Amino acid sequence: MSRTRVHNFTISLDGFATGEGLSAEQPFGHAGHRLHQWMMATAFGAPIMGLPGGSSGVDNAFAQQHEPGIGAEIMGSRKFGPPGWQDDPNWRGWWGPNPPFHTPTYVLTSRPRSPLEMEGGTTFHFLDAPGAEALKIAQEAASGKDVRIGGGPTMLRDFLAAGLIDHLHVVQVPVLLGRGVRLWDGLEGLEQQYQVETVSTPSGVTHFTFSR
Amino acid sequence: MSRTRVHNFTISLDGFATGEGLSAEQPFGHAGHRLHQWMMATAFGAPIMGLPGGSSGVDNAFAQQHEPGIGAEIMGSRKFGPPGWQDDPNWRGWWGPNPPFHTPTYVLTSRPRSPLEMEGGTTFHFLDAPGAEALKIAQEAASGKDVRIGGGPTMLRDFLAAGLIDHLHVVQVPVLLGRGVRLWDGLEGLEQQYQVETVSTPSGVTHFTFSR
Repeated sequence: MSRTRVHNFTISLDGFATGEGLSAEQPFGHAGHRLHQWMMATAFGAPIMGLPGGSSGVDNAFAQQHEPGIGAEIMGSRKFGPPGWQDDPNWRGWWGPNPPFHTPTYVLTSRPRSPLEMEGGTTFHFLDAPGAEALKIAQEAASGKDVRIGGGPTMLRDFLAAGLIDHLHVVQVPVLLGRGVRLWDGLEGLEQQYQVETVSTPSGVTHFTFSR
Repeated sequence: MSRTRVHNFTISLDGFATGEGLSAEQPFGHAGHRLHQWMMATAFGAPIMGLPGGSSGVDNAFAQQHEPGIGAEIMGSRKFGPPGWQDDPNWRGWWGPNPPFHTPTYVLTSRPRSPLEMEGGTTFHFLDAPGAEALKIAQEAASGKDVRIGGGPTMLRDFLAAGLIDHLHVVQVPVLLGRGVRLWDGLEGLEQQYQVETVSTPSGVTHFTFSR
């Protein structure tokens, strides 16, 4: 049975998953790298940033779960590029020629374009479809494997509200961003549908896993 | 040197310190007891609720820090009573004849009344004053001991924004309340003024200490 999973989705202590002022120079706006430093410091995340080394403790154990058993990803339009990327026919995502997805990857956008085949097994498909419908398409492409929901916060909130997520891994970083886009809005009582486990780690972040 | 401390201030995963619909029957509104179950389960909190026993682990170690070295408390009007308590001349707080403060306790309200001397060393004083001024009065009454800031969230946010808090202990419970009054609003970058330590515990809550 294909499950729908979220990994390494990071928020601030005050609940923001991105800052304000997203742009090509600042993919997370005024949040900068503060939300994702924990991941860049791991053996999983360091190579993605072209950095050597990285930790192999509990943060890394969580981070690496991003990969195994995943057969497709769905991401929101605001994860794929900065505001206005739809107007740039040459935009191919943030991640260079070999993006870290290695599966069919569905980008939800009201302005779909032709698929983009990248190196390493990632093909970007562009879909103008509601979440549940996109999920069916991605599950078919995943041929029995799980589908990862990549965020951003707006599309993830929609998937959570629609009851489409089976496993949710959220990482909370003890910074107060003050502004941006919140993850938890409109999700009152969500925890009642899941088993929730919480663990803080020596790096100072807290991992939440919502499983069902 | 008298320090200004906050203990056992509890919020939901989405940042709310109280729910909606506060009333005499529901002091925390639709949040009910969900925010404070962790504390009622400790050896510190159980007797306050008239319950036997209680745990003596890390949650209790944090909870008990509420008491030592405190010479006065300041609380907001909404902690002292339900909406409209100012219209009830017989309202003496939520806590019965022997409130768990045992020091002079200053209630910030735009409608002050005469002091209320309770059992066990608690005297409620009613003050119409800005935070910094109230703090000076409380520090004098504390004669060298620390002053505890009792909340609720609105007054605590004001004290934090004004840089008046030296030690902040916040407990985060993994429930999504969805609505109510948030603690962190308007406090962007607050963590930069503190050393922050995070620890999740077997009960499922996460303790944050902000120290300076």
